[in-house]
Amino acid sequence: MTTLGIIGVGLIGGSVALGVRAHDLFDEIVGFDVATDALDLLVADGLLDRSAESIESLARASTLVLISVPTGSIGVCLAALARSGRSHELAMTDTGSVKGTVVSAALEAFGELPSGFVPGHPIAGSEHSGAAWSDPDLFKDRKVILTPTTSTSPDALARVEALWKGLGARVEHLSAERHDRLLAMTSHLPHLLAYALVDTLASQPAPDEIFDLAAGGFRDFTRIASSDPQMWHDIFMDNSEGLIDALDLFEGHLRKLRTLVEELRSEDILALCERAKQTRDRHLNRG
Amino acid sequence: MTTLGIIGVGLIGGSVALGVRAHDLFDEIVGFDVATDALDLLVADGLLDRSAESIESLARASTLVLISVPTGSIGVCLAALARSGRSHELAMTDTGSVKGTVVSAALEAFGELPSGFVPGHPIAGSEHSGAAWSDPDLFKDRKVILTPTTSTSPDALARVEALWKGLGARVEHLSAERHDRLLAMTSHLPHLLAYALVDTLASQPAPDEIFDLAAGGFRDFTRIASSDPQMWHDIFMDNSEGLIDALDLFEGHLRKLRTLVEELRSEDILALCERAKQTRDRHLNRG
Repeated sequence: MTTLGIIGVGLIGGSVALGVRAHDLFDEIVGFDVATDALDLLVADGLLDRSAESIESLARASTLVLISVPTGSIGVCLAALARSGRSHELAMTDTGSVKGTVVSAALEAFGELPSGFVPGHPIAGSEHSGAAWSDPDLFKDRKVILTPTTSTSPDALARVEALWKGLGARVEHLSAERHDRLLAMTSHLPHLLAYALVDTLASQPAPDEIFDLAAGGFRDFTRIASSDPQMWHDIFMDNSEGLIDALDLFEGHLRKLRTLVEELRSEDILALCERAKQTRDRHLNRG
Repeated sequence: MTTLGIIGVGLIGGSVALGVRAHDLFDEIVGFDVATDALDLLVADGLLDRSAESIESLARASTLVLISVPTGSIGVCLAALARSGRSHELAMTDTGSVKGTVVSAALEAFGELPSGFVPGHPIAGSEHSGAAWSDPDLFKDRKVILTPTTSTSPDALARVEALWKGLGARVEHLSAERHDRLLAMTSHLPHLLAYALVDTLASQPAPDEIFDLAAGGFRDFTRIASSDPQMWHDIFMDNSEGLIDALDLFEGHLRKLRTLVEELRSEDILALCERAKQTRDRHLNRG
């Protein structure tokens, strides 16, 4: 009997549950969430087979545990898994967008890095949050980055990989440090910039008039600023160093662009726009 | 007999032509474009009734002229309209994303601001360019900002308004200066930031690995960097002052955010993310 235990049943946890059902990957799904009312509804809806009263009891009922909570709460979950006394039999993974702090939290919770722990990050999601937005195909053709530690056992790694591949994802391995540096550039920095832009406009004397003039480009550009604030707070806190490095790099480029615009350097501006378009079209031609 | 003359038949000009057909707003549509081969195809396809060999001949055939070319080319078009000797009988409008330089160009081309000239800007478009992407509903429920000059006649204004309203747009009036300041914030700055981000990542040692990790948020955020380079070159050049002002404002906010992240000021970061989400959700709840 295989049982998937999901800690934190939001967009990610709910989508994993739906996908596991759709592909019949586990015999049973047990869920835990601090929002117990919402959890009861998910059991009533059949998304989960049953709910656990605590992380400890979820650990005792599970063969694989998925922690899908905001990164700042992963440490608390790992500590509860350590207290369950069953962590040596479990495969455990998480879905946090920052991996360095998760590895540190595991070390602190267990006193050593457990062989069953496989830090992970599905590169999927949306600006929506909550189980109501769950989608069994959320991970289809998406990348899931696993950052196994030096202690991670081949067995735990294989079981976590099988979960994600079963959901249609492509699994890749990176070091936690490299993951955090790369994601700072492709995800954490763009979110910070979108928050900063919305904040800039909102602080103007007549923000309504400004936002009324926003067209599709602005909507797309700032969509990520509608993401879950707690989740992004945690990411900015947990990857502050990677984010600051990426921001400094970006600001250096932005200062160069500012000079081009200020000095009306026509050829250089055109070359920049052409280069950026070519780069984006080449790498992201799927839309 | 009413004839719409369209100078520059790309995404905007083509969409106007399709919409005018769909709503039967003019008896005839004549087009001019420097890309004569493409223009011939549009006539063959029936998007245009016929092509004009020059802007001057288009002016002689038209009752209303729409200039839908990149902003940097509008001055050349206005000068040709002035040479046609028919500008005093024509209503003329443009679709440029910057209005201050267009008004200056009109003054230079005509020696005075012609009563028939109504500067305009439809807040619509996409990262795609070219008549092949034309959409008769591109302007439906979109705003069109007109910035009539002190010389604009009520008759010309009414005729240009009727065109846009006939295409389903909502028409608003602003001063050219106010338009350029507002659009710098909602459109020109976001484009500059998207170009800057793509350029930053592209300049890294292993850009392929970085772009491979880009998820939906990054795609949305940088979509506008796939826009027409010539068009955006012209906008950055023509609204350099407004853009620099908006950029300085943004950089001030970004520096504050950098400090929050560097100093791990948890409550302030959470407050910022919540405020930005609330602001965006309130103003842009359409997606």
